[in-house]
Amino acid sequence: MKVAHENDLVLLIGPDAKRYLVRLRAGARFHTHRGIIDHDELIAKPLGREVLSHLKQSFVVLQPSIHDVLMKVKRASQIIYPKDIGLILLKLDVGSGKRVIEAGTGSGALSIALAHAVGPDGVVYSYDLRKDMLNLARHNLEAAGLLDRVRLVHRNIAQGFAQTDVDALFLDVREPWEYLSQVCAALCDGGFFGALVPTTNQVSTLLAEMAQHPFYSIEVLEILLRKYKPVPSRLRPQDQMVAHTGFLIFARTVAFASRRAPSDRRQKERSRNTDQGDAGQSLGNAQTLVPACTGLC
Amino acid sequence: MKVAHENDLVLLIGPDAKRYLVRLRAGARFHTHRGIIDHDELIAKPLGREVLSHLKQSFVVLQPSIHDVLMKVKRASQIIYPKDIGLILLKLDVGSGKRVIEAGTGSGALSIALAHAVGPDGVVYSYDLRKDMLNLARHNLEAAGLLDRVRLVHRNIAQGFAQTDVDALFLDVREPWEYLSQVCAALCDGGFFGALVPTTNQVSTLLAEMAQHPFYSIEVLEILLRKYKPVPSRLRPQDQMVAHTGFLIFARTVAFASRRAPSDRRQKERSRNTDQGDAGQSLGNAQTLVPACTGLC
Amino acid sequence: MKVAHENDLVLLIGPDAKRYLVRLRAGARFHTHRGIIDHDELIAKPLGREVLSHLKQSFVVLQPSIHDVLMKVKRASQIIYPKDIGLILLKLDVGSGKRVIEAGTGSGALSIALAHAVGPDGVVYSYDLRKDMLNLARHNLEAAGLLDRVRLVHRNIAQGFAQTDVDALFLDVREPWEYLSQVCAALCDGGFFGALVPTTNQVSTLLAEMAQHPFYSIEVLEILLRKYKPVPSRLRPQDQMVAHTGFLIFARTVAFASRRAPSDRRQKERSRNTDQGDAGQSLGNAQTLVPACTGLC
Amino acid sequence: MKVAHENDLVLLIGPDAKRYLVRLRAGARFHTHRGIIDHDELIAKPLGREVLSHLKQSFVVLQPSIHDVLMKVKRASQIIYPKDIGLILLKLDVGSGKRVIEAGTGSGALSIALAHAVGPDGVVYSYDLRKDMLNLARHNLEAAGLLDRVRLVHRNIAQGFAQTDVDALFLDVREPWEYLSQVCAALCDGGFFGALVPTTNQVSTLLAEMAQHPFYSIEVLEILLRKYKPVPSRLRPQDQMVAHTGFLIFARTVAFASRRAPSDRRQKERSRNTDQGDAGQSLGNAQTLVPACTGLC
Repeated sequence: MKVAHENDLVLLIGPDAKRYLVRLRAGARFHTHRGIIDHDELIAKPLGREVLSHLKQSFVVLQPSIHDVLMKVKRASQIIYPKDIGLILLKLDVGSGKRVIEAGTGSGALSIALAHAVGPDGVVYSYDLRKDMLNLARHNLEAAGLLDRVRLVHRNIAQGFAQTDVDALFLDVREPWEYLSQVCAALCDGGFFGALVPTTNQVSTLLAEMAQHPFYSIEVLEILLRKYKPVPSRLRPQDQMVAHTGFLIFARTVAFASRRAPSDRRQKERSRNTDQGDAGQSLGNAQTLVPACTGLC
Repeated sequence: MKVAHENDLVLLIGPDAKRYLVRLRAGARFHTHRGIIDHDELIAKPLGREVLSHLKQSFVVLQPSIHDVLMKVKRASQIIYPKDIGLILLKLDVGSGKRVIEAGTGSGALSIALAHAVGPDGVVYSYDLRKDMLNLARHNLEAAGLLDRVRLVHRNIAQGFAQTDVDALFLDVREPWEYLSQVCAALCDGGFFGALVPTTNQVSTLLAEMAQHPFYSIEVLEILLRKYKPVPSRLRPQDQMVAHTGFLIFARTVAFASRRAPSDRRQKERSRNTDQGDAGQSLGNAQTLVPACTGLC
Repeated sequence: MKVAHENDLVLLIGPDAKRYLVRLRAGARFHTHRGIIDHDELIAKPLGREVLSHLKQSFVVLQPSIHDVLMKVKRASQIIYPKDIGLILLKLDVGSGKRVIEAGTGSGALSIALAHAVGPDGVVYSYDLRKDMLNLARHNLEAAGLLDRVRLVHRNIAQGFAQTDVDALFLDVREPWEYLSQVCAALCDGGFFGALVPTTNQVSTLLAEMAQHPFYSIEVLEILLRKYKPVPSRLRPQDQMVAHTGFLIFARTVAFASRRAPSDRRQKERSRNTDQGDAGQSLGNAQTLVPACTGLC
Repeated sequence: MKVAHENDLVLLIGPDAKRYLVRLRAGARFHTHRGIIDHDELIAKPLGREVLSHLKQSFVVLQPSIHDVLMKVKRASQIIYPKDIGLILLKLDVGSGKRVIEAGTGSGALSIALAHAVGPDGVVYSYDLRKDMLNLARHNLEAAGLLDRVRLVHRNIAQGFAQTDVDALFLDVREPWEYLSQVCAALCDGGFFGALVPTTNQVSTLLAEMAQHPFYSIEVLEILLRKYKPVPSRLRPQDQMVAHTGFLIFARTVAFASRRAPSDRRQKERSRNTDQGDAGQSLGNAQTLVPACTGLC
């Protein structure tokens, strides 16, 4: 059994399926037009149950997922959606203890997801030109309880990032191609680079400029999420869906030493990228070629 | 600068863009038809650079992302793809320190992703009926360096899970509807449930059976990933794409106390699910309704 | 130069891009909140030009496409969309001079498209149980100028269709599986069958029942239409799209003579259906195998 | 009952589901590795039935749909697919008796579909620079029995089209923006223009150039076709799908007379294009505003 504690963030879902994220405070009260719920009726009590408002309206109290938190971010700008964030985290290898840069901060949705993924030992550096956005992101990060893992930086990234040898760097800015030297300076060799842009023109401009920098293993993709009406006897997709959020670009930085220009390599990589699936050998197979290897390899 | 250490897993990409995952061992050698690379030329040397095989063929050595590892899992069964895994992790709130169950283990791709996401303080319990699959998953987890976070269990889940109060539980089995009592017994109230099934018939059967158990906030969805050819002057989607891996089902378990049957509540939730977007209030807004609340809420 | 004649249907697009379909009548006036346009200013005058209302608001007058007409059908029910209709016409081979049945009539959108495609020498038989729908379809067909090619029939199709040996038959009813004997009686051997259903459950039920009748070359598919914002320097998909209208099912009827049950054949056909592309020989290639054939074959 | 006649094109589907299009000739023989079928066993005999080869292998003989014919076109170039052709025909209003231009001819798939749609009273003018493509298209059109409706023209369209006042014009060439003056000269005012290009860069360049010509009501879209495995108890999408064929651009030509530049109008049209659905009034509704109108309007 899980119990809600003071200062916990809880998700309340009302009888009309409206969702509320609430930080529990002793003595505080949660007001909706469906009635009032005292925080004290939730603190030190089990999660995952029904509670009634003073109007006898039924609410469900739950521990929110990071997905729930992302969908409730207070927005002053288009946020990056969970469908995209899920893949960004895997592609940029954002895990426990990592040091990650993002710019711009925006409303802080990706900041929250990065902070969640790096865990208590990691750190996120988030840059934005606009103070109002940084303040909004601070509000959202604080509400999500993740502010201590994020350094919000008010700075024009044209002047470079203050960190070096970070593990990963993600750009969600209008003209990401303007900052690729700064990106390469901040990333360690082999670092993970990602970007999101909404238009195809931006994708083309970014790819063209990336060809002038030591990027490798470049990928462009988009994610579509299709929801279904969860009715067992009349299963069907919902009528409308989000058709576009943005195009995702991923790449690795590599210090090339050989005389062959990087662009030659990239060209081969590109033609390879167009293949279906992944024809490389599977995990562990390479070892079968290695006579000197014993055990696991 | 990042340096490769003995026992590290590295990603080698050949001149033909073939990808190899190799665990570094002092004295071992990596053989391909493009030549041999001594592990000792990689150990204690920088990552993110070019290395030459003894045939002067150029390879790039990189730290693999968890995404790279997932794509290289040795497979004896259909694996769950990163496009789906990314969202599963966010929806099930799989983060640092969590206790998570999955069944069946299969080739262990999701096991690897779960183990990566729970971090060193979390634990994954992975059940499978088939010893051969458990052995394959053990091989893959060991190769990924994540075996210590996973308990592989050889057991028919019809007999129940050995754990209780786990944070999340994911079913990737043929007839997930057969095990919902066991699922509810293993999950704490408010726990996160997820499942993947390939056919619409299975979705319908699962949804119908879920209506007989205390599931709440049920969602059905699918993720489509569309890749582009990363050529700036001729940007276009690739010709073919994966059209289907599976349907994802997500829900929460809730202990309902009120006299109204859970099915009544769910009906409302369902009609709500069909709405576009998320009409609930944004993070922190609820607080503006709470007079007794000071500061952040 | 094309000229508008009395009784022609014209498309007027206002300064706010609102679209109006108007049947031209001498002396009549077209009123909008952007002003009035006399029909006499359009009759015997060129199409494809700008006209001004009495409020000096600019309208464009055009000959409507059949697509424009379909999008303007007065609706009392969900219509079949042009994205689906385009493929239906090709799959059912609806062309000049054909005899086609559809049921139910609904608002008459497909009726209009079928009537347009069969040309002046073809005929469409359209069945519906509901008089109000038949009246609405009559209104829409009349407005589109295609009523003379359509026989609207008020009849329960459970009692069978009055026609035999029709070229094609399309069902847009809730339980199409109830009428397959009637369908086979109306279609000539080798006829084209199509159906649209919104849910996966209906697809399964229909497929199961089709297996009890002499259907062959069965296909299930769906069409997705993704629109882009037509801005050259900021090209991107629109934010939202229609995610689902219905699943399309197509098949041919065949009189099987051999001892092998039709279901055996269909099984092979089915496994074949799962292949990518079309591995059969291309048009004209078969001839290269035919020694006795001269010329075109 | 439908009977096959000499000179008819028939579709033969073998026991392995391979599909063959054959033009029937008295005395000719159809050879496959599954055995021989005499054309005389098909001529003057019913369609939609099973026939046996001399090896007692079962074939089905059917009248081919125009869709079947399109899928069997002998290809020396990427063809336009039926999923796209269906919508092109509706958008360009290609129906009985129309005069339509296309360039380039390519393998002639779209030529076949256009010829089928214009019926015996219409005509298609198809331009190509390459004699070999024109010859291939001639072969395919002849095999499809539609050559008499198509004028194949060997000419560089930079020199203009020989026709004027055609109803519709479709460009499937690499640089469609080079020929927009020629397009406008060939189309009557209010004519229907369409184009297909594979890359986003081409879409942008075409849109930018279209802004310099009197195009109106510009749309950009793409069509996705998703096939399902037609197994009632295990319904699911096929594993792979075609992810991209091309982007479709549609527009109308309009002779603008007013002082406001066309670009002003188009800007409004564009912002309108981004709306969901079609908020204009429905067919026949405009009439309710027209007091002087009697009857249908």
